[in-house]
Parts: sequence; structure tokens; C-alpha cells
Amino acid sequence: MKNVKFSHLLEKYEVILFDSYGVLRNYNGIIEGVHETVQKILERNIPYRVLTNDASSGPNLLSQKFKTRGLNIKEEYIITSGMMAKSFLSSKSINGKVLYLGTSNSSEYIIEAKKQAISISEYQEYNFDEIGCVVFLDDEGFNWSTDINKVVNLLRKKTIPVIVANSDRIYPVSKNEVSIATGAIAQLVESILIRQFIHFGKPDIQMFSYAYDDLINEIGEFDKSSMLMVGDTLHTDILGGTKFGLDTLLVLSGNTSLANAESLIKSTGIAPDYICDSIKW
Amino acid sequence: MKNVKFSHLLEKYEVILFDSYGVLRNYNGIIEGVHETVQKILERNIPYRVLTNDASSGPNLLSQKFKTRGLNIKEEYIITSGMMAKSFLSSKSINGKVLYLGTSNSSEYIIEAKKQAISISEYQEYNFDEIGCVVFLDDEGFNWSTDINKVVNLLRKKTIPVIVANSDRIYPVSKNEVSIATGAIAQLVESILIRQFIHFGKPDIQMFSYAYDDLINEIGEFDKSSMLMVGDTLHTDILGGTKFGLDTLLVLSGNTSLANAESLIKSTGIAPDYICDSIKW
Amino acid sequence: MKNVKFSHLLEKYEVILFDSYGVLRNYNGIIEGVHETVQKILERNIPYRVLTNDASSGPNLLSQKFKTRGLNIKEEYIITSGMMAKSFLSSKSINGKVLYLGTSNSSEYIIEAKKQAISISEYQEYNFDEIGCVVFLDDEGFNWSTDINKVVNLLRKKTIPVIVANSDRIYPVSKNEVSIATGAIAQLVESILIRQFIHFGKPDIQMFSYAYDDLINEIGEFDKSSMLMVGDTLHTDILGGTKFGLDTLLVLSGNTSLANAESLIKSTGIAPDYICDSIKW
Amino acid sequence: MKNVKFSHLLEKYEVILFDSYGVLRNYNGIIEGVHETVQKILERNIPYRVLTNDASSGPNLLSQKFKTRGLNIKEEYIITSGMMAKSFLSSKSINGKVLYLGTSNSSEYIIEAKKQAISISEYQEYNFDEIGCVVFLDDEGFNWSTDINKVVNLLRKKTIPVIVANSDRIYPVSKNEVSIATGAIAQLVESILIRQFIHFGKPDIQMFSYAYDDLINEIGEFDKSSMLMVGDTLHTDILGGTKFGLDTLLVLSGNTSLANAESLIKSTGIAPDYICDSIKW
Repeated sequence: MKNVKFSHLLEKYEVILFDSYGVLRNYNGIIEGVHETVQKILERNIPYRVLTNDASSGPNLLSQKFKTRGLNIKEEYIITSGMMAKSFLSSKSINGKVLYLGTSNSSEYIIEAKKQAISISEYQEYNFDEIGCVVFLDDEGFNWSTDINKVVNLLRKKTIPVIVANSDRIYPVSKNEVSIATGAIAQLVESILIRQFIHFGKPDIQMFSYAYDDLINEIGEFDKSSMLMVGDTLHTDILGGTKFGLDTLLVLSGNTSLANAESLIKSTGIAPDYICDSIKW
Repeated sequence: MKNVKFSHLLEKYEVILFDSYGVLRNYNGIIEGVHETVQKILERNIPYRVLTNDASSGPNLLSQKFKTRGLNIKEEYIITSGMMAKSFLSSKSINGKVLYLGTSNSSEYIIEAKKQAISISEYQEYNFDEIGCVVFLDDEGFNWSTDINKVVNLLRKKTIPVIVANSDRIYPVSKNEVSIATGAIAQLVESILIRQFIHFGKPDIQMFSYAYDDLINEIGEFDKSSMLMVGDTLHTDILGGTKFGLDTLLVLSGNTSLANAESLIKSTGIAPDYICDSIKW
Repeated sequence: MKNVKFSHLLEKYEVILFDSYGVLRNYNGIIEGVHETVQKILERNIPYRVLTNDASSGPNLLSQKFKTRGLNIKEEYIITSGMMAKSFLSSKSINGKVLYLGTSNSSEYIIEAKKQAISISEYQEYNFDEIGCVVFLDDEGFNWSTDINKVVNLLRKKTIPVIVANSDRIYPVSKNEVSIATGAIAQLVESILIRQFIHFGKPDIQMFSYAYDDLINEIGEFDKSSMLMVGDTLHTDILGGTKFGLDTLLVLSGNTSLANAESLIKSTGIAPDYICDSIKW
Repeated sequence: MKNVKFSHLLEKYEVILFDSYGVLRNYNGIIEGVHETVQKILERNIPYRVLTNDASSGPNLLSQKFKTRGLNIKEEYIITSGMMAKSFLSSKSINGKVLYLGTSNSSEYIIEAKKQAISISEYQEYNFDEIGCVVFLDDEGFNWSTDINKVVNLLRKKTIPVIVANSDRIYPVSKNEVSIATGAIAQLVESILIRQFIHFGKPDIQMFSYAYDDLINEIGEFDKSSMLMVGDTLHTDILGGTKFGLDTLLVLSGNTSLANAESLIKSTGIAPDYICDSIKW
């Protein structure tokens, strides 16, 4: 592991994958130095993608949020875990409606996959027969105690695919506070049913594979060894990037402090190739 | 495994431990045949105890509920997992108040241990410094989404003992429906924090050990091999009884059907010594 | 789930992915009916690939074994989990030699990735500094008690990537007997170190993704919904295929009997779209 | 947590429980200062017990080893996890012989429980029908690759109790090296069979309960709050003692360094009441 400046790595790597939260933005807005770095990347035509464990809304909305804050990240360059769920729903035979836990924003992934969506908050016992799939999209948009119990009881009686469109278990809501995320709610249901659902999102390599194929379409064949994954979380960004065969950079502008990083790398064995404070130029 | 009549086993075993839910009562009231069996046990002076994974209220209230339904089970013969938590709180040094998740009924265990109780629904950030212990008692009495997040954030910042006074993950609310229980909520928080809390209740042997000591006080020394554990759940009653060195009887009047029993015994390896429909005489 | 004849599914699906062990061959040789089915597939020019969790030797040797038994499966059509490990070793920066557990046949994956290989059975303490990566390839070729301890002690002191080139935990050696496989040995070391290694092989989608890209190169763009995964194991073949968005067929010619299948599908929630006895025409 | 001198704690606590390895002795012999401390304890008649996760031989042999090294620890004061297994085998109905993994020294626990013992290294397929129980006692006395496979295949076909008489997963063999222990081998088999065996040893409270009852027999009733558990390992000694309701002292003369202790306490939430270098007076 080497401590480096982000800009120096661009001498070695030609293509960059960024995590979003903790790398580009946080609960406060755009992270210091990121406006300038994105500007340089655009000027130099460096191919990049943003890979985010997010199924709360589509890439169009995420792109708009960046633009509102002065960051020019194209919708087409944002790859969400929700898109992996959408791809699953599109290709796989589903017999019936897709029951979802999340807000109506999140349900767009289902509708775009040309499936019928029904929210857990609307679900009644008489809907039982028409459900063909369950999707965990977001931690909001439903009542935790009543609606999670509904899902448990439905899945005790029915063997249908269940997908988790974002496996993150917490997300930061301020400097020191976190909130329980979709992945943890899904895991609660899994542990009660003693089942393992189908999970999308980093560290799974599916988003990396999608990004790689997409970049080859844009710039032609290139070697994975010239692509760098940049993230703030060891067990999603760094593990996933490593597993896909990429070199990785851990930035300390998000989830992980330097002291934390050192102790976690030792205890988990997940090691980035480089560490730096942020992607500030 | 032998299929037997419960009354025949009383020729071999002199002391009986009963689980409560699924053996004596269910969502409908007292299980058919139980009134008569308890009557016979009282007439013959057969020493017994009731071991229940329950921290929602004290044995006095549980005993009253039995009596209301015509079953004469003395308060002193009921051993709850909440009592194990109370014993922990009594003997162990705790520096501060005990924060609990549960109803005010459940908080009696804390008060009887002579500790100060504060409900998670009343907890505010300014209480942070005064908390010395967290106890999961019941799944009711608080708001799941806001209050579970409060516990997560408290425990991310403070290393204090956390105890789970009932590790059951679900409980039946009708013939076909279950509800998420304290144990599953605690497990959700454990998985987010990557910590293991201190759990009380079967299959842990603590309640069995308490019952054994208590019975020796009543009837004098006797050998464990003359005591039988009766329960409806393999991974709590049967596993716990077996681990404590007891022979065990699985009854099919609760959680587990015969088909289920056979497949679960095969897949888990947890095998009762006997199986019967219920404790009907 | 529908019970079908394999040949009827070829009216609906145009591209087929086969698992090897339990679908094409078993401990006895080629499974009954497979010679004829493969013949039909070749005659009709149906595009296919064989996906096998195997890192004990390269696809050339596996292809030869098929040919010796009269089955014409081209080397280029065989995709092994060892190839995923090779791809990782090729693209990812590794600082030093690759220490492997396995036979010398299995080490070819390392050599083809242009890395230096050293067997755990040759490893001595003075090699400590030169090791940059550890790979679990096969359960043979080393002494379990002494050499697994060597790996544990090495990894307690050194934070380097560890990859598991075949996550299967057992493999059948006769009709009723199994043998512990690489994946279980790796898991033993993971549980001792409380670390998670990088695993390759089904149910991970990497091999599916590789097969899909490879087939597109051969026959041009096609939709995932026209591709069928055929396997005998729910938690590798069927789960992996489903996760990649494919419809799946469970065959009963290998690991899983019909009674087993029904109980496992219920308990795990992993459900194939179709079930049949074997791929016999 | 307070940093203290061990001798000062004897002003507050009247009864002491010691772990053996890392507290009294290590790979080098008796730990510095322990001879004098044990001498003081004997002179002052302080009631104590030694609780050790060990099923490799009986307390008589362990006591002899202490005496050979000049430490006067009576056999009756040593409580091993093997004794818990022996108690299980004595009280619980077992139909057949007890198959064990371990040396012949370890098999004494079975013989003292008046059961017939058969070593896995002698086990042949024709013994299949006569086996009524399997016990993991020690990591030596058998061939890992062949004999662990024998156990796996036996237990795939037979539903009988399996007990793990020592759940420790590693033990130190020198300052920097460890060796895989019985608990890890048992866990390997559990993970392959997807079953949970019956485990004895700390952190389970059974040995604490045994020690408490035994001490009451010796000195009469006393309160748990006057008893201190002393150990070098957080997840066995400190967790188990805490769970039993005891105050605990972590010593740094064994498994856990100060830096390690602080980071582990933070990450696991298992916190001792006191920390000191060793039990040196």
C-alpha cells in the first residue's frame, strides 16, 4: 500500500471507476476538491464511470442531483445497483406482479423492466396469489413493523425469487450518525426465513462487469490492468474492485478514517493498492 | 426416536420440564388435553417447572394468565429468560442506567434487579452519558424505524454490555401467521455493528441449570437422567435440553408438524428421544 | 416449476449452459443418455458452454477426459473457475510469488497468468518475504495437518490477496460417499482468521458473464432470456444462473434427488424454472 | 475499564476463577510471577478454581503437569471442558459406542462416563451400525484427510448426537505460531453438513455454573458479585464470565496484547471490568 496523490495515479491508469457516496459527495454536498478534479477529468477526456449501491431512484435523478450541485456527471455514466435489479427483472421469467419495499421513485426500476409493481404498503392478503417476485429497493416508503411482518409471512408460504437491489446495511445521515439501510432489512428477513436472497451491488462484480463492457463500447478494447477503482469502503468498493481484478484506491473522505483503515485492512485482509485523503487534485 | 404417549413416559422420568408456548398454550388459549394432564401431575405430586423464552412480563403475570384460563401453574414454578437477564443485572457491575427496548411491563425485570430503567422511546441524545447497559426485552413499546436507529447510533459510540432477554426470532400470532420477535431485532442490530450480544433463553443451558438447582432445593438431590424436557421447538427446547444432558420429548402441538419434524431432524441433526402429538394424557 | 423433457426446452431456448459434474458425467463416467444428447446438439449447431467449478486442471485436460470417454466437448467450450482465478492473477498487481495449495496440474493456471508459483508443500519459513498471494486450487497435493497450519500462520502475519479458485465444499467419490473439497479447506482457514477470501466459481456470476461474452463473440448479440442454465446443484448452478438473469433447469442425475429437491427448494427458496431427470433426449 | 494490580482486586473479590493457558502457563512453562501469586492465594486460603477449554486429557494429568513445574494446583480445583462432555455422556441416553477424534488420553472422558469408546482411526465401515454418538476431543491421534472424511460420511447418513468437547479453534505453539485446534475441525464438519453440534467450553456458562456450585459446596453460599473471572481471551474467558454475571479481569500475559485488546474491545463490544499485565503480585 502506497500513500499517493490521486492525480499522480492518472499517469499509470487510463480509466477510472468512482464510488459516489464518500468519494464525490457526502451528507454535506459535494466533497471539497471534487469539482476541480471532475473538471480536469472532463478536460483530459479520461473515461470514467460512477458505480453506486443505490436503488432509491434512477440514474437520471442522481445525475440531476449532481448537476444541481455544480457537478457535471452524465446520466449515462452512472451505474446503480438498481439497474442490475432491473436487468434481472427484464431477462428472467417472472410469473406475476413484483412486490417492492421502497418509495415510488424506486419502483421505476420495476416499471422500466416492463413488470407490474405493487408496494408493500398497499399489499393485502387478497394480493397473495398475484405476487411473482419480491424486491427490496429502499428503507423508506413503508411501515417497518407492519410491512416487514407482511413480507415475512408472504415468503413463508410462497417460493418466489427475492432480490435485494442494494445490499448496503447502513448509510450516513450526518458526521456521526447512520441510518439502517435496505440491505440490513433484507438480511433481517433472510435470517428469520433462513434463506439467502439474490443480492445486487458492490462487492458483487456485476456492476464492474457492466461498467467494463460499457466502457469497451465507448473507447474500444482495453486491459483491466489500466483501470482503477476508487472508493471509500473496504468491503464494497475495494473488495469488489479487487475481485474483478482491478487495482484499487481507498480514499479517506468518507466512511473510513486512516486509523480505521489500518485496523480493518489487518483484520479483514481486504487491502487497497493505494490510499489517499480524497480525490482532490 | 420413539413415538409414545406422554403418560407412559412418567413411568421412566420423575421430573418434568415443560416449555410453555406450543406445549401448554397457544394463540387460541390452553391446548386441548392440557387441563387434564396438569391436574394429574398435581395429584401425583410430580415435580415440574415451566421454562419459557419470555421477557415481556414477569412470572406473576404469566401465572395469572394461566389461572384465568383455568390452569393452576404457580408463579414460583415458571422460569423465564427475563429472569436470567434480571440475575445478570443484579450480580454484574453496571455503571449507569439500563436502556431497554420493550413495554413497561417488561421493564419490571430491570427494576427488580434494583437498576434504573429508561425506555428507548424516551431516550434523547442528552441521556447518552448516563446509559450503562442496553437490554432487548420485547418487540413492542417502541417505534421500530426511529428507535432501532437510536440504539445503533448509541452502540456505535459506546462499549457497554448489551443483553438480549429473549432470543426467539418469531412468535406465532395465529394458525399461519408469525410476528418478528425481540431476538430478530437484536440480531439486526448485532449484524449492523458486527458484534455479538449476550443472549439469554433456551437453547442456552442457563434456564435448565436454574430449574435443576431449584428442583434440588425442593425435592433433594436427583440425577439428571430422571428429568425429561418437553418442548415443541427443536432448536430451543430440544437442543437446550439435550445440551444440558437431558432426554427430550418433542410434542407436535405447537411450532413443528410431523413432516417438518422429520425433515428438520435430518437437516439439523437435533433429535429428540421421543415424539408425541401433545401432552394429552 | 414444470417437469419437462430436456429436448422440449430447445424449442424455447437457443443457447445452453451445462454444468459438468452431475449433468454430463459422474464418478462412473458419462451419464446415461448424454452421448446422444451431445450428438444432437452438435448436429443442430446449438451454441453451448460447459461451466465447471474446477481448478484441479486446465480445460485442455478436462476436454481430453471427455474425449477419452467418447464425448466431443471442445477445450474452448469449457469454462472453469480456475480460469477466473487465472484472469485475476493476470490483471491484478501481485508483489511476489503465488503460493498454492493443490497438485502441480492445478498450478498451470498460475503459470499461464505469467506468475511464479510455489507449492505449500515446498514452502519454508525463509520463503515468507517473497509470497505475494495465496491460491486454493485443489484438496490434493499437500499434507492437510502440517500445510494448512503453514497457511494459517503465514496469513496471520501478512496481508495479501487470498483467492479460492473453487468454492465447492464437497465432491462425490462414489454413489454414497463424498470427499472434502478445496472450498471447505479455504473456509476453515477463513473462519480461523475471521477473514473472507476472494472466491471464484458458481454461484458467483463471473463464469456466466464470461460465457455470455464468449458466446456473443461466436454468434453475435442475443438476449439472456434465450439462454438456459442446466445444473444438478441448487446453490451453485441454479442460484448462479438465476442471479445472472437466466432461466434454469435442475436435472436429477447428480447431487440432488427429487425428494431432496422439493425440500431444499422450500427451505432455501432457490427454485429452478424446470426440473427433469437428466438431459437424456 | 480500569488498569489495576491483581493483588489489589483481592480486596474487592473473595473468590477467583482462573483460565489456565495464558494466565498460569504458556508454551514456555509457568508465566513469570505466577508461582508467587499462587503461593499467596494458598496462604490466604482464597477459594479458587481453574477453568480450561481442554479435552486432551483429564484434570489429574493437568494437575501433574502443574506440579512438575512447581505449581501446586489440586486436581479437584481444575475444571475442564472435557468434564462437561463427560457429564453429558453420563446423563444422556446414548444408543451405542462413542466414536471419538483424539488421542487415547482424551478418550478417558468417555470411559469414565461408562461408555464404550472407539477411535476414528480404528473405525471401519462395518462399525457404522454400532455408533451412537460422536465426540471431538483433540486435534491429534488421527489422520486429518482420511479420518475427517470418514466422520463427514458417517454423519451424512446417521442422525446421532455430536459433541465438541473443546470449542477453541487455535492454540499457541510458540511466541508467534498457532496450531489448528479441535473446535476448528469440528466447525469444518459442521459447515459441510450445515449442522450445529453441541459445544462445550467457555464462553458457554456451563463450566462457570459447575465451578460456582462446586465452590458453594466447599465454602457455603456466596454472591456471584464477590467472584472474579481472570482470563487472557476476550471471546471465551471474558465473554463467558460476563454472561454468567461475573466481573472480569483481562490479563495481557497470553493471547491478547494491549493494542489488540483495545481494538478488539471496540470492535466486539466484549469489555472486561479490569485489565492488567499479568497476575503477578
